[in-house]
Amino acid sequence: VNLDAQQAALARQAQLTKPHGALGRLEDLAIQLAGLQGTVTPSVKRVRIVIFAADHGIAADNVSAFPQEVTAQMVANMARGGAAISVLARALGAGIELIVLGSVVPIASDPRIRSEIIAPSTANFTQKAAMTDAQLRTALAVGRAAVARARGGGTQLFIGGEMGIGNTTAAAALACAYLNADPAQLVGPGTGIDSERLAHKRQLVAQALELHHHQFKDPFATLMCLGGFEIAAMTGAYIACAHSRLAILVDGFISTAAALAAQRLCPGIEHWMFAAHSSAEPGHRAMTDALGLTPLLDLGMRLGEGSGAALAVPILRHACLLQSEMATFAEAGVADGQ
Amino acid sequence: VNLDAQQAALARQAQLTKPHGALGRLEDLAIQLAGLQGTVTPSVKRVRIVIFAADHGIAADNVSAFPQEVTAQMVANMARGGAAISVLARALGAGIELIVLGSVVPIASDPRIRSEIIAPSTANFTQKAAMTDAQLRTALAVGRAAVARARGGGTQLFIGGEMGIGNTTAAAALACAYLNADPAQLVGPGTGIDSERLAHKRQLVAQALELHHHQFKDPFATLMCLGGFEIAAMTGAYIACAHSRLAILVDGFISTAAALAAQRLCPGIEHWMFAAHSSAEPGHRAMTDALGLTPLLDLGMRLGEGSGAALAVPILRHACLLQSEMATFAEAGVADGQ
Repeated sequence: VNLDAQQAALARQAQLTKPHGALGRLEDLAIQLAGLQGTVTPSVKRVRIVIFAADHGIAADNVSAFPQEVTAQMVANMARGGAAISVLARALGAGIELIVLGSVVPIASDPRIRSEIIAPSTANFTQKAAMTDAQLRTALAVGRAAVARARGGGTQLFIGGEMGIGNTTAAAALACAYLNADPAQLVGPGTGIDSERLAHKRQLVAQALELHHHQFKDPFATLMCLGGFEIAAMTGAYIACAHSRLAILVDGFISTAAALAAQRLCPGIEHWMFAAHSSAEPGHRAMTDALGLTPLLDLGMRLGEGSGAALAVPILRHACLLQSEMATFAEAGVADGQ
Repeated sequence: VNLDAQQAALARQAQLTKPHGALGRLEDLAIQLAGLQGTVTPSVKRVRIVIFAADHGIAADNVSAFPQEVTAQMVANMARGGAAISVLARALGAGIELIVLGSVVPIASDPRIRSEIIAPSTANFTQKAAMTDAQLRTALAVGRAAVARARGGGTQLFIGGEMGIGNTTAAAALACAYLNADPAQLVGPGTGIDSERLAHKRQLVAQALELHHHQFKDPFATLMCLGGFEIAAMTGAYIACAHSRLAILVDGFISTAAALAAQRLCPGIEHWMFAAHSSAEPGHRAMTDALGLTPLLDLGMRLGEGSGAALAVPILRHACLLQSEMATFAEAGVADGQ
């Protein structure tokens, strides 16, 4: 983080034609982005959204309102431009890349979909580790490579999105393990299951935590035991963003679990992150609190795909534009406050 | 409100490729806009921002951190494109109109500024009614005419903004009168005054409430006694929006006081309003609660000018785009949830 640029941005904010502090968090965002990008007038015009999709062994235990083939169907829908994130990426003029790391059904060959299949799905983590060591390393590398491509394209803000039936269960398990919390607090209804199936989902997470708890001192092993391929790829992507000085806009519940994994693997990288929104999923708040992030939006969203992050992009963009385009008191001939 | 279109929008939301309810408030916004615009696929592409500026007699009592000539200076800054709202209007591709209803210093002739001067300022409402009956009627008509011009240009969403040194004092006095509340609860620091001057500001509002309280059964007389020309013009504009079936995005503290005045004059028109953001000004919440509106953003902003409303425009736009452009389960060949 460039403290000189941050300081210069702070000084500029005080000169702009508005009462001091009147733009609230927009001022803080511009100042923080100035520090991350090393310039007094940061920009997040060029946004890259990378969707990581994968299937989960735990889906066999009936934890979702949707059948597992929906992962592949939704990736195809994203490729054709019909998913929520497709609509939002178009509206934002953001680049979008779709990467599939695991699918229980074949993925149709499509130039808009990048196949990086590790396995049809992770293993069911109530029975064994979700991934092998090699699978986890591959998934992390897929995320790193996506960031390298984004960086090559001049991206100024990175958004990771995900698709994977069953992945709120994996994310909740990771949250419980990293935060040493009770499944009753952090496991929620995901796509919308009834209270009976929610109790079942909590029981499965408790079972997984019991099975793997001896691994939880090691953040890498924790991710291997409980994560998903898409979550691990996002974890690798976030770490690569921080290492290549690229600001991150974190989406909702699943993305924040990946952010938490990234922070446990590389403490300090949370300074490169902005939390886009408060997910309606009940366990989300505990994770953003642990990361020291305050979500920008609270619209009751719980879709994933990076959709909440996309909604927050205009806030960051407007913060940057105000910082660079507003007139100063001197330029405008406006009397400053006393 | 067109209930058929609202019902059709609700039915469409259930068909879109996402878990039911997963877009949270975005779904409600799209459905509400569908009802207001009478179409299953509403749009807020064409946004009009009208800034009403005026000076206040109460400013003589030293209630602001800024000298009174700043009203005119900031209008000139807006015309040149250097104010926060100028930057945001450009970014949104929104039309902007600047109207001055009162200024203690001469307004430079500028084709970008519409002069509708009623008087240099309102009267000091601690001594007498801020406006005469005729002045209030003129101000309301200025607002109505601005909406007629916006309507003529095909506007789909109306934003009123304001500029007027001293106008948080007038807005707080109106809030106290309409809500029968104590100045200690609803009078805040505005542009940023210290606690001593805040106590003075509260005392002035209490004095005005004492002087005019016998008028508070009549919402028109209340606005005449305590309002500002720009607040009254915005009140007239909001009423005209509802009557001409145009959705309103209400900005912060001053704008919400105008919205409250409009609702007291024409109960029911609050159904045409969206609250853009929670102002940092402490009295704002009581007014949005009274109007039954839940702000979309909470970014600690307290600038006025319509800036908070401008920040919320992308949320409404994205809600509309998702409603019209997302694929349905049938179109995408995605399995629906159980």
